[in-house]
Order: sequence, then C-alpha cells, then structure tokens
Amino acid sequence: MAIRISGRNQLPGKVIELVLGDIMAQVVVQVGEFVVEAVITRRSAEQMGLKVGDEVSVLVKATEAMVIKEMP
Amino acid sequence: MAIRISGRNQLPGKVIELVLGDIMAQVVVQVGEFVVEAVITRRSAEQMGLKVGDEVSVLVKATEAMVIKEMP
Amino acid sequence: MAIRISGRNQLPGKVIELVLGDIMAQVVVQVGEFVVEAVITRRSAEQMGLKVGDEVSVLVKATEAMVIKEMP
Amino acid sequence: MAIRISGRNQLPGKVIELVLGDIMAQVVVQVGEFVVEAVITRRSAEQMGLKVGDEVSVLVKATEAMVIKEMP
Amino acid sequence: MAIRISGRNQLPGKVIELVLGDIMAQVVVQVGEFVVEAVITRRSAEQMGLKVGDEVSVLVKATEAMVIKEMP
Amino acid sequence: MAIRISGRNQLPGKVIELVLGDIMAQVVVQVGEFVVEAVITRRSAEQMGLKVGDEVSVLVKATEAMVIKEMP
Repeated sequence: MAIRISGRNQLPGKVIELVLGDIMAQVVVQVGEFVVEAVITRRSAEQMGLKVGDEVSVLVKATEAMVIKEMP
Repeated sequence: MAIRISGRNQLPGKVIELVLGDIMAQVVVQVGEFVVEAVITRRSAEQMGLKVGDEVSVLVKATEAMVIKEMP
Repeated sequence: MAIRISGRNQLPGKVIELVLGDIMAQVVVQVGEFVVEAVITRRSAEQMGLKVGDEVSVLVKATEAMVIKEMP
Repeated sequence: MAIRISGRNQLPGKVIELVLGDIMAQVVVQVGEFVVEAVITRRSAEQMGLKVGDEVSVLVKATEAMVIKEMP
Repeated sequence: MAIRISGRNQLPGKVIELVLGDIMAQVVVQVGEFVVEAVITRRSAEQMGLKVGDEVSVLVKATEAMVIKEMP
Repeated sequence: MAIRISGRNQLPGKVIELVLGDIMAQVVVQVGEFVVEAVITRRSAEQMGLKVGDEVSVLVKATEAMVIKEMP
C-alpha cells in the first residue's frame, strides 16, 4: 500500500550529518548537488533510527517556501 | 552590501511555471535535477516581476522541513 | 516497505469537506470527535484524488503547533 | 471579552508530558483519544507556567497541515 | 478568564486592508509604524467578522521568523 | 545587485538579546516600539556573526501569520 503526501516538495537524498540536541535534531541531507537541512525533534530522529548514510527524503510544504530574486 | 538570511535552505534554480491565483501564486522552480514548488502571495509575485525563465532561489527554513525514511 | 515521517502529529480521520480554490484547497477532516482543517495546494488535492469520504491522516510538524492556556 | 484566533485548529486537551530544553520545550497533549505534540520556546512554557495536568488547546494554522492518503 | 498563547510574537494593530479570495484572505495590518501582512483562510476572516478598522493582533510563532543581516 | 524576497514581512530592528542553544538560538529584536522574537538555528546565528546591537530584519512569510481579534 503506497501512501501519498500532499506536501509538494519531497527531495530524495542521503543523510550526511546528524546533530542531536536536547529537544531538536539537525539533519543535513545531500540532495543531488545540493545540501538541504531539516530541524526535527530529537525524539523523531531517534525513533526513525536516523543515522549518517540513510537514504531519506526531505519533505517541505510549498506554502513554507519563499522565493528570492536578484533585481537588476 | 551583501545580505545574509538565516534560512538554511536557499536552493538556486529557474522558474519553469508560474500560476497566479486570486490571493496566492504557485511558483515551480527547476533546481538542478529537482522540481521545487513554492506558494507565495500573488502580490509578491507581481511586485517581484516574477516570470518563467527567472533565476531565483527557493528559501526554506530548516524548521519547516521534515524527514521521510523508508523503514525495512 | 513502510515509511516513517518525522512529523510528530499524524491524525487519522475522514474527509468530510473539500473546497477547491484556484491555487489552494481546503480539506476538512473528522478526526475522532474533532474537526481538523488543512489548506493544501489544489494540485495536490487533485493528484491525490482527494474526495469526501476518503480515509486520510493530517500531518502537522510539532514546531508548527502552539499552545493556548487559560490563565486564572 | 472573548478573543477569536484565525487559526482553524484549536484542539482541547491535557498536558501529559513537558520536556524543557535549553531553547525549546516539547509539550505532549492528550487530545481526546489522540496524542498531539507541540514544540514551543522554553521561555513561553515557563511564562505560561505550563505543567503536566494543565488543560490547554493546541493551535495549528490550517496552512501548516498536510494530508496523507493511502493509495490503492 | 484571560488566555495565554505560546506564540512569542503578538503585534497589536489595525486592519487597513482585507482582500477575500476563494480559499484564502490577505489581511494587512498597521502595527505602529510598520505594515504587517497575514494570509489566513477566508472562512476565518468571515467568521471573525474581520473588516478594515478592526483592532487586531498579528500572531507569529518565533520558529516561523527568520533573520536577515547586512554583511559588510 | 539588490535582492527581493517574497516574504511579505521584513521588520527592521536591532538585536537586543541572543541566546545560543545546542541546536537552536533565540534572537530578540527591538523593532520600533515592539519586541519581536525569532528562533533560528545556532549554526546560522554563528555563521551570520549575530550579536547584540546588530541591525537586522525579521522575515516572516504572510502565510505564517495568524490574526487575533477581541470579540465583543
């Protein structure tokens, strides 16, 4: 049974760094040529058994994304 | 004078689609091999003169990103 | 292959109302005794074939949730 | 004088766990049959005098909620 | 009975513009010398009876705010 | 080369407090007569060389802002 998530951005990559804090955890993911960072709860990072080398996707809702443009 | 934004994720790409709604606007950006979508206000899209072909960056705060992992 | 999403809140329920706008869509979900609303992109609602009666889960990152307390 | 908050989701429940970190605090709330988690600032948790057993509501803006659907 | 909301930013001001879309509504608020904009659901705007001239507060969770700094 | 960010709210002010946590950092900014708080990653605070007295802007996407109204 596959699931579908409404979040428009699901970027596949590999965990290259994981920093566990008291409440939060910083997850650094190599997504193709890009580095993308997520801050999730430590509890989720542990329950997911997250570790460097894991294949993951970074999920971002489109309404959470802004656009930056260089103006001439 | 350069500026620095605290948002960890600033993904450079090119606008490949722009849909203007009444209040919101959907911006589809080719970021390397990935397609990333942002939903911003129509007003901002217009004031930025956004159009297909524009070089932009998609800005996402790390706290807005979740992680998905396939579990064995 | 199961997947695991870092978002702490995944509330199971049934779609009881779906309103499609130009860019966004309002999804109203009966979650046990509660009604929970999500605003997602219309495009996602359509690609997911969302309709009233669908069994779904509402996904909310814990950092997106605030707490309200009545003070004596 | 009552107040009205635009956030669509205000889920009433009872604090069942509170973890104070250096900057953030994890608040776990029993909302009917569901457990809902919020990550707020430690400062707010302290200023609200939050403690296990408190009656609270978890406030979530509809635009922050995603939808997950199992696809056949 | 007063209530306390964990969101760190509650900026008092007056509605100076309200644009109702199909799903969303754009609310422009004069907050002292600043103009602050919120995009909420149309349904909430209507249920709150929002109109130009209303005294309101704009609520923003601290985790949703980024910082921009000019670098020399 | 100027840049334009789609986020509707860019509030100029001065850093009056900075608290560095393990993963996150709390940034308190005097914005005219108001105090506005942002929680960003510690890594960004350090890379930006943030310190009390810095002139900054607080960036908030309009979709992240809610509205509170006192009802008669």
